[in-house]
Amino acid sequence: MLTAAGLRAATVTGVRRLVLLTAGHVVAPDDPDGALHGNRRYAGSLPGMAAHPLLDDLRAALGDAAVLTDPDLLAGHARDEADLCDSGTPLAVVRPRDTDEVVAVVRAAGRHGVPVVPQGARTGLAGAANAVTGAVVVSTVAMDAVREIDPVGRIAVVQPGVVNAALARAVRERGLWYPPDPGSWESSTIGGNVATNAGGMCCVKYGVTSEYVLGLEVVLASGEVLRTGRRTAKGVAGYDLTRLFVGSEGTLGVITEVTVALRPAPEESLTLVAVFPTVAAAGGAVAGIAERGLTPSLLELLDRTHLRAIEAYRPMGLRTDAEALLLAAVDTGARAADDLARLSEVCIAAGADEVYAATDATEAAALLQARRLAHPAMERFAAETFPGGNGGLVIDDVAVPRGRLAELLDGVARIAQACQVPIGVVGHAGDGNMHPNIVVDRADPGSLARGRRAFDEIMRLGLDLGGTCTGEHGVGLLKRDWLAREIGPVGVRVHQAIKAALDPAGLLNPGKMF
Amino acid sequence: MLTAAGLRAATVTGVRRLVLLTAGHVVAPDDPDGALHGNRRYAGSLPGMAAHPLLDDLRAALGDAAVLTDPDLLAGHARDEADLCDSGTPLAVVRPRDTDEVVAVVRAAGRHGVPVVPQGARTGLAGAANAVTGAVVVSTVAMDAVREIDPVGRIAVVQPGVVNAALARAVRERGLWYPPDPGSWESSTIGGNVATNAGGMCCVKYGVTSEYVLGLEVVLASGEVLRTGRRTAKGVAGYDLTRLFVGSEGTLGVITEVTVALRPAPEESLTLVAVFPTVAAAGGAVAGIAERGLTPSLLELLDRTHLRAIEAYRPMGLRTDAEALLLAAVDTGARAADDLARLSEVCIAAGADEVYAATDATEAAALLQARRLAHPAMERFAAETFPGGNGGLVIDDVAVPRGRLAELLDGVARIAQACQVPIGVVGHAGDGNMHPNIVVDRADPGSLARGRRAFDEIMRLGLDLGGTCTGEHGVGLLKRDWLAREIGPVGVRVHQAIKAALDPAGLLNPGKMF
Repeated sequence: MLTAAGLRAATVTGVRRLVLLTAGHVVAPDDPDGALHGNRRYAGSLPGMAAHPLLDDLRAALGDAAVLTDPDLLAGHARDEADLCDSGTPLAVVRPRDTDEVVAVVRAAGRHGVPVVPQGARTGLAGAANAVTGAVVVSTVAMDAVREIDPVGRIAVVQPGVVNAALARAVRERGLWYPPDPGSWESSTIGGNVATNAGGMCCVKYGVTSEYVLGLEVVLASGEVLRTGRRTAKGVAGYDLTRLFVGSEGTLGVITEVTVALRPAPEESLTLVAVFPTVAAAGGAVAGIAERGLTPSLLELLDRTHLRAIEAYRPMGLRTDAEALLLAAVDTGARAADDLARLSEVCIAAGADEVYAATDATEAAALLQARRLAHPAMERFAAETFPGGNGGLVIDDVAVPRGRLAELLDGVARIAQACQVPIGVVGHAGDGNMHPNIVVDRADPGSLARGRRAFDEIMRLGLDLGGTCTGEHGVGLLKRDWLAREIGPVGVRVHQAIKAALDPAGLLNPGKMF
Repeated sequence: MLTAAGLRAATVTGVRRLVLLTAGHVVAPDDPDGALHGNRRYAGSLPGMAAHPLLDDLRAALGDAAVLTDPDLLAGHARDEADLCDSGTPLAVVRPRDTDEVVAVVRAAGRHGVPVVPQGARTGLAGAANAVTGAVVVSTVAMDAVREIDPVGRIAVVQPGVVNAALARAVRERGLWYPPDPGSWESSTIGGNVATNAGGMCCVKYGVTSEYVLGLEVVLASGEVLRTGRRTAKGVAGYDLTRLFVGSEGTLGVITEVTVALRPAPEESLTLVAVFPTVAAAGGAVAGIAERGLTPSLLELLDRTHLRAIEAYRPMGLRTDAEALLLAAVDTGARAADDLARLSEVCIAAGADEVYAATDATEAAALLQARRLAHPAMERFAAETFPGGNGGLVIDDVAVPRGRLAELLDGVARIAQACQVPIGVVGHAGDGNMHPNIVVDRADPGSLARGRRAFDEIMRLGLDLGGTCTGEHGVGLLKRDWLAREIGPVGVRVHQAIKAALDPAGLLNPGKMF
C-alpha cells in the first residue's frame, strides 16, 4: 500500500478508460475539466457489466446473497437525498457482514481497478454517497452490531451500519447518552454520520459527531486495516488520524468500526418559543444570547415559509403569522428556570412579539417534533407548489459567525427576491448554521437555473460573511466548486496530496469532495 | 510544493550528509536503524556553522537582530523540559515577527536543505521541541499578538507566541474563558499548546486543546501558507486539516496563527478533598464517579510521594499521612452543592477515610495551587534525594480507560518495587490520565537503567490495560518506539505517507514522533 502516486490507467467495466492522476482524480479522457476541478462523474452505457470478472471474486468472497446486481436494486442505491447531484449505475452493491469481508471487497476491487463507493442509509444531502458508474457500492447496513457499551469508560463500540437511533436507545438503557442527532437520526447510520461528520440540534451545546468519535477501524485502499485513536478519555499519540477520517466522505477508507464517547443521560430541560416580526430580529436575538454568555442546549430558527409548510403537513397550531420563530431549550437542572428567564429577556430586547415557555414535557416534545418535520414538510410544500408534482427542494447548508446571522438572513431574503424563487430558512441558529431551502420546478429549466443561481449566491454570501460553504451536510458532489473557493489552491493541493498518499489509485469514492 | 516524494540527499552544515527517504525519514548513513524506526537524531561536531550561507539569507530576510547564533543562546534553545531525550546544537535560532518572515525562513532553509525546528516556550515534556544539530530553530516568541477577541462569535485569533495565561487573562476581561490549562500555562505558548495538543486540569469536563482550535494558519514545508478550518461554530468543508496539524509536533508545518473557540466565563465552583488509605481506593472512587454519571470540572489525584514533596516545597498543611488524595470540583451553579454531596458519597463508598469541602474560594484556590506545585516540588524532591543534586525526574504520562485506573495505580506501585526506583503518581484521574514520576540518580548508570526499565514497564502496562502511551505530553523523541507499538505497522505507514505528502524532503522537525 501507499506506494508513490503516479500516472496510471485502469480499465473500468471494459467499456471506457478512466485515467487516474496523481491527486486521486479520476477523469474521463474526454473530460479535461476533470483535471482542473477534481474527479468528475463517470457516465456512460455499460454493456456487459453483468459479466465483469470482479463479480466472481466478490461472490466467492461474500457469497451470492451479499452481492446484488438486480437493476432495480442498483438503481435504488444510485444516490442519497441530495438534489442537483449526478449519480451513476454501480456494477454491484455488496453487503459485507464484517471487516474481513470489507477487506476482501476492497482488495478485489483494487485488483480490477474498480472504484469503491461506501454507503450507509443514503440520507446524506450532498451526494457524497452517490454511486459512480461501474463502481462497487459497499453498503454497511449488514454491519449493525453494537459491540460494547462501557458505562464507566463512557464509550460504545459499534459497527458502522448501526442506526443512530438504535445506538441512542441502547445507551439510554444504560443511563448514557450519544448526543449527535442529525435530522435523519431515525434512519441514518453511525458510519454515515462519521463519514459526513453529521451535526444536529444538540450541537449548539454538545458538539458535532467528531467530538464523540474516539477511535476508528478503517479498511484502507490497500486493503490493510488501520486502527486509529483510542478508548481512553484523552490521548495524543501521533497524528489525529481519527479526525482525518471523520468527515472524509469515504474518500480515504471504508469505516468498519467506531468507538464513540458517551455522556451521562441529559437532565430534564425547559423549552421556550419566541415569535419575531422579522427573521433578522430573530438573528439579532441569537447574537444577544451568545453575547450574554448563555448556553442553550438547543436554539433553532424556523421562518414563516417553514411554519406554514409544517402546519399544512401536520396541523399543530403553530403561529403561521409569525415571520420567524426561535425554539430554545436549557438543561442545566436547577438553574434552568433562571436561564430560561434570561433567554426570554434577550428575545424581548431583540424585538420578539411574544415569548412563551412550554408548559410541560409533552408540549416541549411537540415543538421539537415540529422542528424535526421541517424537512419532509418543505418537500411536500415544494412538490405541491408546482403542477404535476414537479416541485423540488434544493436543501442548502451554510454557517456564518453567530454575529453575522442577521445579515445572512436578510441576504437570503434579498437573494430570493432577486432570483424570483421561494426560499424558506430553517436551521441551527445558535451555531449560525442555516438551511436555506430553495423551491424549484424540476420541469422548468428557467426555475432550475434561478434556483441554481440562488444557491450560488447564498454560498457566496456565506463566504463573504466569514462563513463556510457547509456547516454540517458536507461537500460531496454538491459543493466541490465551493469547497475549492473556500479553501483556496493551497488547501486543495493539500487535500489532493493526502488523498494521493492514502489512495494512490484514486479508487475510493472518486469524484467526491474535490 | 507537494511533489512526489523521492530519494534525495541534502548537505547539512557541510559536515555530514543526511539521507532523506521517501517517508520523511532523516537518517545518518551509518544509522540503518533510522530506516526502520524513523528519523534519528543527527549528532556530530559542526565546524564552520558560523559561515553557513543560509545565515546570510536569514539575516537578509529578518534582519541581524532576529537571527541568533551566540553559542550560549543556541545551547539555551537546545531542548525542552523532557528528561531522557537527546538534543543537538542548532545552526541558528530565528525569531520571526510575522507570517511572511516565517515563510522566508522556511523557504531559505528548504533551498539549503536544512531542517527547521519550531519552538514555543520549550516547556514540553517529550523532547518534541528539541533542536536538531545544524537546524534552524524557529522561535515564535516574537509573534505574540492577540489579534482579535469576538464575544458574540466566542472566538479569539492569536499569533502562536501568545502565552496561554496571557490569552486566558485577555479573554477573561471580556467575560470569556479559554479552558485548556496545561501545567505550564503561565509560560507555555498557544502555538506550543496546539502543536502538542496540550491537556490540563479542565479537560475532564471541558476537553483538551484540539476541542478549542477552530482554524489555523500554517506555513508548509514548501513555504506556502495554508489556512485551515473556520471562524464559525460548525463547519465540515473538506478534510479536518486543523486537527491533523493539532498535535503534529511541528512535523507538518509551522503554525503562524490560531483561531480558538472560547466559552462563557465559568461559574463559581465548589471544591472537595477526599483522603484515601490506598491509591487503588482513590482509583476506585474515580470509576464510581463516572459510573454514577457525575461530571466534575476537576478530578485530580496526588499520591503520598507528591503530597510530601509539595508539603516540603511549600508547607500548607497537606495530609502527608494519606496514601492518596482526590481533589474534585464541580461548577454547575445552583446544583453544585448537590453534586458535591454525591461526589462525597461515592468517595466514602470507595473507602475514603475523610472527605471535606473547601470552606471558601481561598481554600479552594490553595488546594489547586498545591496540585499545580506537584511538578516543581517533585523536581526539588528528586534533586535532593541523591547526593550532589544529581537526582532527576522522568515525568511519564499514560492514560487508561477510567475503569482500569485502579489497576494502573496498583501496577505502578508493583513496578516501582520491582525496579527499585521511587515513583510518585499524580494526574488527571478523571480522564484516567496519570503522570507516574520516576526519580533517578543521573550520576548512577544503574539508577538510570532501572528508571528506564520502570518507564518502559509503565508504558507496557498502560497499553495492556487498553490505554495509550501518552495522554497529553505527546510523543516527541521520548516515545517514538511506544507510539510505533501502540499504532502498529499500518498506523506507522499512514503517518509516514502523510508526512511525505506534506514534507517530501523531511525537513520539518525531523526525527520527532515517528
